[in-house]
Amino acid sequence: MTSVNLNADMGEGFGAYDIGNDDAILKIIRSANIACGFHAGDPLTMRHVIERAKAEGVSIGAHPGFNDLWGFGRRRIDMRPDDLENLIAYQIGALQAMASFCGEKVTHVKPHGALNNMAAENADYAMAIGRAIKAVDRDLIYVALSGSEMEKAALKLELPLAREGFCDRQYEDDGNLTSRKVPGSVIKDPAVATQHVVQMVVEGEIVSRTGKRIKRRVDSLCVHGDEPTALALSAAVRKGLEDAGVKVVPLTEMQLR
Amino acid sequence: MTSVNLNADMGEGFGAYDIGNDDAILKIIRSANIACGFHAGDPLTMRHVIERAKAEGVSIGAHPGFNDLWGFGRRRIDMRPDDLENLIAYQIGALQAMASFCGEKVTHVKPHGALNNMAAENADYAMAIGRAIKAVDRDLIYVALSGSEMEKAALKLELPLAREGFCDRQYEDDGNLTSRKVPGSVIKDPAVATQHVVQMVVEGEIVSRTGKRIKRRVDSLCVHGDEPTALALSAAVRKGLEDAGVKVVPLTEMQLR
Amino acid sequence: MTSVNLNADMGEGFGAYDIGNDDAILKIIRSANIACGFHAGDPLTMRHVIERAKAEGVSIGAHPGFNDLWGFGRRRIDMRPDDLENLIAYQIGALQAMASFCGEKVTHVKPHGALNNMAAENADYAMAIGRAIKAVDRDLIYVALSGSEMEKAALKLELPLAREGFCDRQYEDDGNLTSRKVPGSVIKDPAVATQHVVQMVVEGEIVSRTGKRIKRRVDSLCVHGDEPTALALSAAVRKGLEDAGVKVVPLTEMQLR
Amino acid sequence: MTSVNLNADMGEGFGAYDIGNDDAILKIIRSANIACGFHAGDPLTMRHVIERAKAEGVSIGAHPGFNDLWGFGRRRIDMRPDDLENLIAYQIGALQAMASFCGEKVTHVKPHGALNNMAAENADYAMAIGRAIKAVDRDLIYVALSGSEMEKAALKLELPLAREGFCDRQYEDDGNLTSRKVPGSVIKDPAVATQHVVQMVVEGEIVSRTGKRIKRRVDSLCVHGDEPTALALSAAVRKGLEDAGVKVVPLTEMQLR
Repeated sequence: MTSVNLNADMGEGFGAYDIGNDDAILKIIRSANIACGFHAGDPLTMRHVIERAKAEGVSIGAHPGFNDLWGFGRRRIDMRPDDLENLIAYQIGALQAMASFCGEKVTHVKPHGALNNMAAENADYAMAIGRAIKAVDRDLIYVALSGSEMEKAALKLELPLAREGFCDRQYEDDGNLTSRKVPGSVIKDPAVATQHVVQMVVEGEIVSRTGKRIKRRVDSLCVHGDEPTALALSAAVRKGLEDAGVKVVPLTEMQLR
Repeated sequence: MTSVNLNADMGEGFGAYDIGNDDAILKIIRSANIACGFHAGDPLTMRHVIERAKAEGVSIGAHPGFNDLWGFGRRRIDMRPDDLENLIAYQIGALQAMASFCGEKVTHVKPHGALNNMAAENADYAMAIGRAIKAVDRDLIYVALSGSEMEKAALKLELPLAREGFCDRQYEDDGNLTSRKVPGSVIKDPAVATQHVVQMVVEGEIVSRTGKRIKRRVDSLCVHGDEPTALALSAAVRKGLEDAGVKVVPLTEMQLR
Repeated sequence: MTSVNLNADMGEGFGAYDIGNDDAILKIIRSANIACGFHAGDPLTMRHVIERAKAEGVSIGAHPGFNDLWGFGRRRIDMRPDDLENLIAYQIGALQAMASFCGEKVTHVKPHGALNNMAAENADYAMAIGRAIKAVDRDLIYVALSGSEMEKAALKLELPLAREGFCDRQYEDDGNLTSRKVPGSVIKDPAVATQHVVQMVVEGEIVSRTGKRIKRRVDSLCVHGDEPTALALSAAVRKGLEDAGVKVVPLTEMQLR
Repeated sequence: MTSVNLNADMGEGFGAYDIGNDDAILKIIRSANIACGFHAGDPLTMRHVIERAKAEGVSIGAHPGFNDLWGFGRRRIDMRPDDLENLIAYQIGALQAMASFCGEKVTHVKPHGALNNMAAENADYAMAIGRAIKAVDRDLIYVALSGSEMEKAALKLELPLAREGFCDRQYEDDGNLTSRKVPGSVIKDPAVATQHVVQMVVEGEIVSRTGKRIKRRVDSLCVHGDEPTALALSAAVRKGLEDAGVKVVPLTEMQLR
């Protein structure tokens, strides 16, 4: 039986600030990427979201970002790979400590925002993240955009690897995501997203926006819950996968690599 | 043979900023309290000081502080004990991750500055710190001012406990430190400090500034290296202890509790 | 004709984070206390709320707080008065610069959260804030809890002074606010709040929760918009004041001192 | 009589941290670029350096940087020009407020580190900085690398403009600075630097490292005091200029544009 994971970014509040829709999205996903205090998240928020994930049987991962709370980690920062390596390890360790209060274990790492985008393209960044993961815990799953430099880094470092795909984004013929600037690049119709995703998971291929079929393995699908429509789409995708006989499981239950 | 530990605060730079005299002090002490990124320290600085401590055979501990880089953790912040508990765990975990790059293990925790002062007096704070330690790793040694609320918290939580004394400070008849505002409260003469410390360790008693002898166990002595005179005093204390037949060892080699 | 001002805290988001209900509250108040980047607020948020205040004819003031975004400025920090003086001036100047984009002028200063509470009780703090105001612009109105140390500081420094009262809080017989821990201390019934406030403004007296009448001048009333009930209460208070023949005006139109 | 200005970056400590050699460099320069709290500097440090600059008759300017204390403002951050515009204005206003304690006036603006490098090349950044300057105080002098996008922005916005040159750097034939990666690009010999600078100021031309003469106006020369050799070079340059009959003056005494 085919399995896939659904992941989402969570715990992105800070102090008095709340953002996102963690409670609703936790009912849909099976793995949570938890902000670690740099682009968002504070120690209390981190602990709370771990408790809630545990209650829902959702596995937890670190979602490290740049040290830019004002920019919510969405601004590219031209950081030396060495600094990045240390920045990532620091955040993973901090989350591990918060998880220890709940008797939980951090089992994956997925970079946030601008850092994720840069590491997808830049081998030095992708390797720096991988080295941090490997130093802290070589059993941590590196969640990497399928086909990206991060995938290559995980393979090179012999880390557990989850190849990631997107439910709500169109792809180009070369397998890259279509730019958000292109009209239609963000899929908003739950039925379209569901068909897109089922094919990705069941057939192991992405259909580009021109109709080209690209072989591409996907272990984990990223969903969003920021807006009512995104939440509805995520729920539809999960139901569609299950209706197609796909089991939706935590990353820790996937057969990776 | 009697043993005692010498500890000092280290790694208190931040980014482009350097402070203290880590290289010199590492030759004298046996355990390093390493700043964890909140009152001082950044991921790169943390990693470097761990490497240097390892090279000198110095055991490492977390030195968590308030989230106040501007105030260098020296301002009292009226934080809820729950927030404090999470703040401490976060910083310990971050340091553990940095230590993993060097194959080192964090083996103690000593709070910094205003947090240390508050926790010495305030049972809620002392317990919050203890709960954080216990959640993250119950084998971590809680370094606590001898006779303080922190000592009581460590005993109550059944954590490994190192009772701390001061080389360069006078004590009152009730066993508390004499306020820095009292002339002479900071000992600057290496010979006086050495005599003070040897009695503390060998006889297990503190002599107050009025001459009263107070039974008080001390497992670890805090030294400073900020100024040339402090560094010279620290070196003299170490030599004096060794001349008196006391073995100066890492915290991990002490028989605690 | 009697006049009074209504003020509220605004612009307390940060980056991706939004909080409060600025648009609704701007329709009710006549003066906005704008967060300046330390406990909340970032340069972009500051500029946006100034623009919106201008559009509503609402006068603007600085709402400086402690450097504690995580704690939203609600934690007491034991800061030296000298540091505080500089902290306040820095924040006022920053807001003045943001106002210059809109051709607006900062005309008052009201401290935030824990800083406001500390300065109400502590003369050194109240004076430090006053010295900062005086250095930056001696025409800035110091918004001070009526009867507090801040009021005394403003008088001593000969600064324009607006004595502040609370719509939604009970008072003790000595004129201090009843602690929030006392049941009923926060007034939630719009009719009760309105009667309370009209008496304060029209009669110049506060009625304590035991029924004692205390002479107390009030130039500005603080309202909240955080919750639907608070917003409704604020709107009722404004209407009640106007029905009682009180003119609700910006601080800049009040006859102060 | 020919005049020129010497400027240097100052007040780049933070809280307990000190950096640079402000006291020595203040004896050499005539204008100080003061860090404003984002890449370095805190309100107290800012105020102290303003006092010291005033005592030496050195004019003061804002030295705004990216919000990256860890990176000391040396990391490029891909910020929207709108955010940048607000970031700059905020920092200028904060410094103006600190100057008000000393009865001083902020008279110029020079961006720091990575921001300065980006704005030299990027017209959107250069204009964003210019708009911030213009909004806050249109009499502020925009210190811009001679020949850069910043120079163009200042001219376009009709702001007072000081074209900047470097004492200790070689130039390419196209008038750009030689990369620091090229051996010899940083001039360390005081005699060589002095000849280089005197020609720049007296003849109005830069001699490139290949010997080509480039017409280039320079109103202000940037000096460094970070290291003993840099300080000696700066002192030699000043003496050399004066020996050549050039008057070294504050920016406020230059005939600009």
